[in-house]
Amino acid sequence: MRLVAFDFDGVFTDNKVYVFQDGSEAVCCSRADGLGLEKLKRLGIETIIISTEVNPVVGVRSKRLGIRCVQGCDDKKTALQSVAQELGLRWDQVAFVGNDINDLSCLLAVGLPMVVRDAHPDVVQTALYQSQTAGGQGAVREICDLFADVLKENAASRTRQAMKT
Amino acid sequence: MRLVAFDFDGVFTDNKVYVFQDGSEAVCCSRADGLGLEKLKRLGIETIIISTEVNPVVGVRSKRLGIRCVQGCDDKKTALQSVAQELGLRWDQVAFVGNDINDLSCLLAVGLPMVVRDAHPDVVQTALYQSQTAGGQGAVREICDLFADVLKENAASRTRQAMKT
Amino acid sequence: MRLVAFDFDGVFTDNKVYVFQDGSEAVCCSRADGLGLEKLKRLGIETIIISTEVNPVVGVRSKRLGIRCVQGCDDKKTALQSVAQELGLRWDQVAFVGNDINDLSCLLAVGLPMVVRDAHPDVVQTALYQSQTAGGQGAVREICDLFADVLKENAASRTRQAMKT
Amino acid sequence: MRLVAFDFDGVFTDNKVYVFQDGSEAVCCSRADGLGLEKLKRLGIETIIISTEVNPVVGVRSKRLGIRCVQGCDDKKTALQSVAQELGLRWDQVAFVGNDINDLSCLLAVGLPMVVRDAHPDVVQTALYQSQTAGGQGAVREICDLFADVLKENAASRTRQAMKT
Repeated sequence: MRLVAFDFDGVFTDNKVYVFQDGSEAVCCSRADGLGLEKLKRLGIETIIISTEVNPVVGVRSKRLGIRCVQGCDDKKTALQSVAQELGLRWDQVAFVGNDINDLSCLLAVGLPMVVRDAHPDVVQTALYQSQTAGGQGAVREICDLFADVLKENAASRTRQAMKT
Repeated sequence: MRLVAFDFDGVFTDNKVYVFQDGSEAVCCSRADGLGLEKLKRLGIETIIISTEVNPVVGVRSKRLGIRCVQGCDDKKTALQSVAQELGLRWDQVAFVGNDINDLSCLLAVGLPMVVRDAHPDVVQTALYQSQTAGGQGAVREICDLFADVLKENAASRTRQAMKT
Repeated sequence: MRLVAFDFDGVFTDNKVYVFQDGSEAVCCSRADGLGLEKLKRLGIETIIISTEVNPVVGVRSKRLGIRCVQGCDDKKTALQSVAQELGLRWDQVAFVGNDINDLSCLLAVGLPMVVRDAHPDVVQTALYQSQTAGGQGAVREICDLFADVLKENAASRTRQAMKT
Repeated sequence: MRLVAFDFDGVFTDNKVYVFQDGSEAVCCSRADGLGLEKLKRLGIETIIISTEVNPVVGVRSKRLGIRCVQGCDDKKTALQSVAQELGLRWDQVAFVGNDINDLSCLLAVGLPMVVRDAHPDVVQTALYQSQTAGGQGAVREICDLFADVLKENAASRTRQAMKT
């Protein structure tokens, strides 16, 4: 995988929204995610947040995490395709992490569709991997750790192979 | 059912209230509910929020979800009856989703009384359906999904009947 | 019992505090508590919140619930004693609901000491009743419901006795 | 132990962050922690919060708890070493409570490394003690209570010894 794309609500958050009297909103994220995204960065894997709605908290959180973010796209798949093309990537080089039916187009398009533990039943069967952690509880961290572990194993395996020859 | 009416606190929320020093309040809702309410809209089922107290967060959330809302009614049943009459509906064409004893008058009046998983024990026995999901954790979504599934089954069944004749 | 006194943090709340950048704080309460306190009021039982620290959120919440509140007392027991004397009550006519070691003086003084399900282990043994519900999750409501049920049973029992004679 | 140093996020909090539209953040702490830190103070044990990032909420919470706080240090171990030297303490007189991989340098340096129940798997094996309570749910209180209990036992044991001679 060269690009890991994430839905925001329900993946970076527990799919809850805090509603205030003045009409503003807040969300709850996990501090654990930041250290995971740094791992992917060091491994040269691109990351992006794709969110249908335009919501200031998505911009605030993505800026804080130093991760690019596309908001206000009519169709998530089209938005993700633009990003992939810009990076010169094929669908099979892209992973997507989602949690609900508005993620279906992306989950069905990418090479590695992933959902969080508490994803809606209607999307679970589309995923190759379902996180053990729930959205907003460290699901992003778990998935980043997994990529890092697999890539390290890969490197170790290639090293062993090289030593044999 | 032609109209599904919802209590707000404990149904759209986890029945908690966040209390701030300046006297303002906030509540916590589920992002999952929006996609469920859209399903009902597409199926032509009317939806409404009925809340006894006047609280700005109810108005904020209902506006965000694009759902009509009646606040500050002395008696919920009278308020619901007005809405039903305005829409030309009988009680047996109305469903109501509640969670506590101030919902009893509505639960006892409507054709389809429903409560959330964590409803107060004193109202559970009045309901024909108790959601598997707790209030604010996706209970509204679960109930909307249920209506959508049942109506789809109905349509499929009628189609099969029509093909036979 | 003629007076039920409540600690605030950990009884009306889940003992959590939300800390903001500007130094302000918020707490999370249960909407279920209000209907319980109304029951006690109708039964003629006095209620009060006793809190050691002075915190604006305690005042905000008690005002919203229409319940008297004493804040900023060096010793909770002295504060509770003043209230009891003012109402002409003896210790055995007073119940107190607490959750931590700063509630010990009150719990040991009153006729009916009560703690919440998630009270600190060091106070649990002082209580005659431990709620099944955790603080901020409806513990206040559970305790109010309990008083209401017991008093109704009492009334029913007295009625049956009266009919026999 | 003469000094107990704490990481902030994930130890004093549940490792969550509330993200607001205006870019500000909030965290959720346990009211139970304050009574524990007071116990340590009375026992003459120094306490400090060590946090890599500079975040206003850390300053706000530490001020409220009356506990010193070091923020914005490139390396937590260097920061902790400075504090220990200033107090004239060796590493084996210092305990550290952490929850994630950015705490590894401190956990490996101190005499008593401790982690919270929900610490990241990659740091759990470095700890001599893992709290039964999760971060932000009273983990700090549990650890303070533990120190207080052990020191009381020590004192009692020394008293018994003295009486025998």
